[in-house]
Amino acid sequence: MILRVVNPNTTASMTGLIGRAARAAASPGTVVEAVNPATGPVSIESHYDEALAVPGLLAEIARGEADGYVVACFGDPGLDAARELARGPVIGIAEAAMHAASFLGRGFSVVTTLARTTGRAWDLARAYGFGERCRGVHSCEIPVLELETDPAARSVITQKCRRALETDGSDAIVLGCAGMADLCAEISAVIGAPVVDGVAAATVFTESLVRLGLSTGKHGEFARPPAKPYTGLLSPWSVARSSARS
Amino acid sequence: MILRVVNPNTTASMTGLIGRAARAAASPGTVVEAVNPATGPVSIESHYDEALAVPGLLAEIARGEADGYVVACFGDPGLDAARELARGPVIGIAEAAMHAASFLGRGFSVVTTLARTTGRAWDLARAYGFGERCRGVHSCEIPVLELETDPAARSVITQKCRRALETDGSDAIVLGCAGMADLCAEISAVIGAPVVDGVAAATVFTESLVRLGLSTGKHGEFARPPAKPYTGLLSPWSVARSSARS
Amino acid sequence: MILRVVNPNTTASMTGLIGRAARAAASPGTVVEAVNPATGPVSIESHYDEALAVPGLLAEIARGEADGYVVACFGDPGLDAARELARGPVIGIAEAAMHAASFLGRGFSVVTTLARTTGRAWDLARAYGFGERCRGVHSCEIPVLELETDPAARSVITQKCRRALETDGSDAIVLGCAGMADLCAEISAVIGAPVVDGVAAATVFTESLVRLGLSTGKHGEFARPPAKPYTGLLSPWSVARSSARS
Amino acid sequence: MILRVVNPNTTASMTGLIGRAARAAASPGTVVEAVNPATGPVSIESHYDEALAVPGLLAEIARGEADGYVVACFGDPGLDAARELARGPVIGIAEAAMHAASFLGRGFSVVTTLARTTGRAWDLARAYGFGERCRGVHSCEIPVLELETDPAARSVITQKCRRALETDGSDAIVLGCAGMADLCAEISAVIGAPVVDGVAAATVFTESLVRLGLSTGKHGEFARPPAKPYTGLLSPWSVARSSARS
Amino acid sequence: MILRVVNPNTTASMTGLIGRAARAAASPGTVVEAVNPATGPVSIESHYDEALAVPGLLAEIARGEADGYVVACFGDPGLDAARELARGPVIGIAEAAMHAASFLGRGFSVVTTLARTTGRAWDLARAYGFGERCRGVHSCEIPVLELETDPAARSVITQKCRRALETDGSDAIVLGCAGMADLCAEISAVIGAPVVDGVAAATVFTESLVRLGLSTGKHGEFARPPAKPYTGLLSPWSVARSSARS
Amino acid sequence: MILRVVNPNTTASMTGLIGRAARAAASPGTVVEAVNPATGPVSIESHYDEALAVPGLLAEIARGEADGYVVACFGDPGLDAARELARGPVIGIAEAAMHAASFLGRGFSVVTTLARTTGRAWDLARAYGFGERCRGVHSCEIPVLELETDPAARSVITQKCRRALETDGSDAIVLGCAGMADLCAEISAVIGAPVVDGVAAATVFTESLVRLGLSTGKHGEFARPPAKPYTGLLSPWSVARSSARS
Repeated sequence: MILRVVNPNTTASMTGLIGRAARAAASPGTVVEAVNPATGPVSIESHYDEALAVPGLLAEIARGEADGYVVACFGDPGLDAARELARGPVIGIAEAAMHAASFLGRGFSVVTTLARTTGRAWDLARAYGFGERCRGVHSCEIPVLELETDPAARSVITQKCRRALETDGSDAIVLGCAGMADLCAEISAVIGAPVVDGVAAATVFTESLVRLGLSTGKHGEFARPPAKPYTGLLSPWSVARSSARS
Repeated sequence: MILRVVNPNTTASMTGLIGRAARAAASPGTVVEAVNPATGPVSIESHYDEALAVPGLLAEIARGEADGYVVACFGDPGLDAARELARGPVIGIAEAAMHAASFLGRGFSVVTTLARTTGRAWDLARAYGFGERCRGVHSCEIPVLELETDPAARSVITQKCRRALETDGSDAIVLGCAGMADLCAEISAVIGAPVVDGVAAATVFTESLVRLGLSTGKHGEFARPPAKPYTGLLSPWSVARSSARS
Repeated sequence: MILRVVNPNTTASMTGLIGRAARAAASPGTVVEAVNPATGPVSIESHYDEALAVPGLLAEIARGEADGYVVACFGDPGLDAARELARGPVIGIAEAAMHAASFLGRGFSVVTTLARTTGRAWDLARAYGFGERCRGVHSCEIPVLELETDPAARSVITQKCRRALETDGSDAIVLGCAGMADLCAEISAVIGAPVVDGVAAATVFTESLVRLGLSTGKHGEFARPPAKPYTGLLSPWSVARSSARS
Repeated sequence: MILRVVNPNTTASMTGLIGRAARAAASPGTVVEAVNPATGPVSIESHYDEALAVPGLLAEIARGEADGYVVACFGDPGLDAARELARGPVIGIAEAAMHAASFLGRGFSVVTTLARTTGRAWDLARAYGFGERCRGVHSCEIPVLELETDPAARSVITQKCRRALETDGSDAIVLGCAGMADLCAEISAVIGAPVVDGVAAATVFTESLVRLGLSTGKHGEFARPPAKPYTGLLSPWSVARSSARS
Repeated sequence: MILRVVNPNTTASMTGLIGRAARAAASPGTVVEAVNPATGPVSIESHYDEALAVPGLLAEIARGEADGYVVACFGDPGLDAARELARGPVIGIAEAAMHAASFLGRGFSVVTTLARTTGRAWDLARAYGFGERCRGVHSCEIPVLELETDPAARSVITQKCRRALETDGSDAIVLGCAGMADLCAEISAVIGAPVVDGVAAATVFTESLVRLGLSTGKHGEFARPPAKPYTGLLSPWSVARSSARS
Repeated sequence: MILRVVNPNTTASMTGLIGRAARAAASPGTVVEAVNPATGPVSIESHYDEALAVPGLLAEIARGEADGYVVACFGDPGLDAARELARGPVIGIAEAAMHAASFLGRGFSVVTTLARTTGRAWDLARAYGFGERCRGVHSCEIPVLELETDPAARSVITQKCRRALETDGSDAIVLGCAGMADLCAEISAVIGAPVVDGVAAATVFTESLVRLGLSTGKHGEFARPPAKPYTGLLSPWSVARSSARS
């Protein structure tokens, strides 16, 4: 089974981290392809960043076929479009993490990077049906690319997780950034509660769907998009078509 | 990894069918223990049946330890109580099937046995956050135990699935009874849309959680129940305690 | 008119307290039968306790016929199943208390025993349609059976009620345990706001339905359960059938 | 116990019908005062009619004190204002009927007079928390004042109730007009399902609250309105004040 | 274009203030008629005040025809009835302010006069669909008629707005009283966030609808009310009919 | 006042039609700049099309400053990102049309092009708070670019609108595509109910906000995005920055 895990930003070190997290979660037989687009923002911290990241992300989805796909940014950018393009199942890491946390109790809290992204996290929670299970979305005010370099990041995030658990009366924590993937086990051990990393969760859930032969329903909204010209773009559609279908 | 899949009714042939479905879905290394209680209803088709099935079901959860647990009846009876008792993760098949279907598009339809159980299915859909994604719950008026014997069952259910898909504008079908587990692939092939069987879905999702080291949050609502006397019962609690913790 | 008020736990002193509260609320002509099951937990403080209490509770519902029934535990255990079994109307005390509080203003707060039961209270509030009217669920951390013996219980609960009123901006308080039935008038006098005890509320509302000739709709979900074998159980169904119908 | 049942329109024959329904439902010791305002619309079939009926209705609430009050029009006009004015509890008949129907199963259907009033019925259902339990609101296109005179009314309404039950999969019917109060038992007998009349339901529920010593919370939104001049009106407030408080 | 802006209370100085705010917002060609009823409360601070204000308000709606109408009290009293009576569009100032604030970000906070009116503000927010966008409703405890005379009013309100913004994490403020219309620009400048006055918002939105030729749908709920006698009232209906239609 | 109306697809004839509709709605003093991106899909009929249209759309938002902005595609693509970039207010045409329709009665129906886009319309309705007011979303199965050329389009759409009104019991119709802007008045005349075109509605509402000095709250989620490198893209950010701020 081939799983393509797409980091929608262009920072290779983060793609590396994401790939390691996905491989650690995947079954022995699964090949994880961790990739990122050639163009787009180096990190995704605004609606604008998301918008500019999506075309590159979709090119990675469309480039040759895999058995399943993970969109590895907590805003789940381009998820609906990716489902239209791909034949195999596609899961976003916010989606996966929230689903996983829902299996672990009655409520969960999200701990994320910047306050300006909390609106998007709430949007997703409500869209996925978890508007009541999601008890709070808390930010650490650590920019995405400083997660790896800021020596205080670990302790700030751990502290936030502990407080979120108490304030919200939650049963589990969801880490709200692909860049936090490697902190999961450590924080869980410290706070004594389940902590969910979306990269790992999306990896195992996508594997699960592939194993069951389940993929996006293709007779309605998520059918392949109608073919048409894309002015000034390198015919992304015919590319996608040929590569993803061949 | 040991997965205990509990059929909460007492019909052994159905436990066999459920076990086969779970094993077909599980990873190579996973041992599936398919069991059913010694006492309780032969099938679950009412709130009353559910109520009488739950103590036996919980005894199966508490009997020795497994790595994860599946409650294999579409009403997800006793799920909250099972989460209190067990150390490992517990997933119900309605819960798993609805989560899986949510990954496959915008909306799903449930096709189940008797009309009188549709209220419970709606209850669960709303409780899990899928009140809007669940577009319809349709009954075939085939009693649970006739699923195996009624020669018309297959075609009636397939027909219902096809109509539900159209009427509801759904992207996927959820089969609303553990006894339909073996029909999944066939119906999907006929109607050309993803069809989710909860037994398979719960098996792979529970495996997924175990692999990620995730289990029910234990510091609040789902902590082990306070020890106390249970008048006239064979001290279920101390039994549960010793067996499930040893 | 005969009203059967079932305390689902096996503690006789609590059944006595519940019976007194129901009789104080009932009309002169009404006979209140306060009973409890022969088997089950001595108090209900977890989902597990609820699950083990329900079969005994249902046997009490099915034992001979009454005109109406009250399920006298704030988790409203087994309510749907009881409605299937009984010919007369059945009301739970959480249900009744929340309905009553809804008549008294825009919002109410629940004050209950243990924090681990607050999730269940929220579940019920939402299921009954009071997810917005219920402004808060607060626990006193007093175990059910210490309500009668803990000399500080009264003042702790009164204090919680007062604070809940202010914090939540509520118009009324709902007491979240049958064991608090006798505190109602006193707390109301102290805090100067309406305080609802579910036992009293369920008693008068059930009486009300009986007087109007109203009972559970019986042509769908709440029709009598289909007859079937219950392995290893003393044919609860035929017992229920003969006793409840004769 | 004195219960004032206010028909907010000025049609005396309808006040008579409402009074009879309330007295038939009330306990032996209860005195039912059925009254209507001196001024206002002869029937309430629009938002405009409601608006013009409310001042007269409130004058009836404020005229001397009763132990409890019923607002006997299915739009529940002026209910919040009446709760501010009165010391005793106040219940509307739509409110009471929907609460009663909620005790009888999972869903109910409303059968009412004119299509133009169905929006208001939905508004109330949602405001009371029954947006999901209310499965449908159906109109018979019989004006309020023709309910008594139209010889076909009975059979049209009965027919609508039967169809509503099937179409909506409901467990109970709510009659959506005080003028239908006398049809309740007959329709229930014909369709074989519980049928709720709001006048009777509001009567017994208001009695219930009075018996329990429960009334509107008075420390916030529903405290008596601040005293102030009412230009050009016969100082309704001081009247209300003196009469309702003396 | 003639726009009638109705202040539903009888305080002329407030009508003056409202008229100035509406004219400041209106386009050059628009004539703003700022009026108030001859009878009714001098200010609206309770459900009772609202109820007594509505008949006078509706008379102003019905008195001769305008192109569009604004109901200039934050409780939006009589809005549905006004829509039935008028041919042109009618907008309430709470409605307009909340719609405007929804265009300015994800969430808004309401800052209003008395705590007892916050329930009504929440009612409206939910009825208009903004139950989630409305993050908080905060009161200053300044009576409506003291807004003009209390020298501390400005700073108290500004302070409340600033705190609401922080506490609620809102993007914009909605001023919850027509009497605050002149504070809008000043507060916005001080707190550095958009502040919406409903009088101005309702004026420009009503103008907008008139310019597009849009008005209330008249084939259903909001068709003109059926003609009928109004006992003891100066035939409001025929007056309304002749004046509003001529 | 300068209003930039951005057609996010690259079809110039449609930009022309949109410009005409916006100018017809705008006030005399308003300059409407109708533009479209240089690159992107020729029409937007899938999530994929939306994703590829957004970067070009955002470049148009960022190119020099206007007083207000309209996103003229019924999927409201890139709306949140546009609000981050622009200083002036930004409104989407689905957003504007749904807000406008909410002022015209209790419920509206959307009539749109292809069935595969109805999911997106529901998403938006719910996100804007109109999940209950939106009664139905109906498709005509006419591709966007055939709206101008298909001779049957007018009558098919008119027919759909009429049926939607009846089936859904709606008070108004919302046209679900910018390409239908010129059909509005005609259809309204034929069906006798208000019909809302989003281009016109967004134009007048954006003008309204500009006139009131209201724009997106800029201290939180919608503050300008943090500056950062965008790999392989023509530094969109510095371009946006210099042009939009200069």
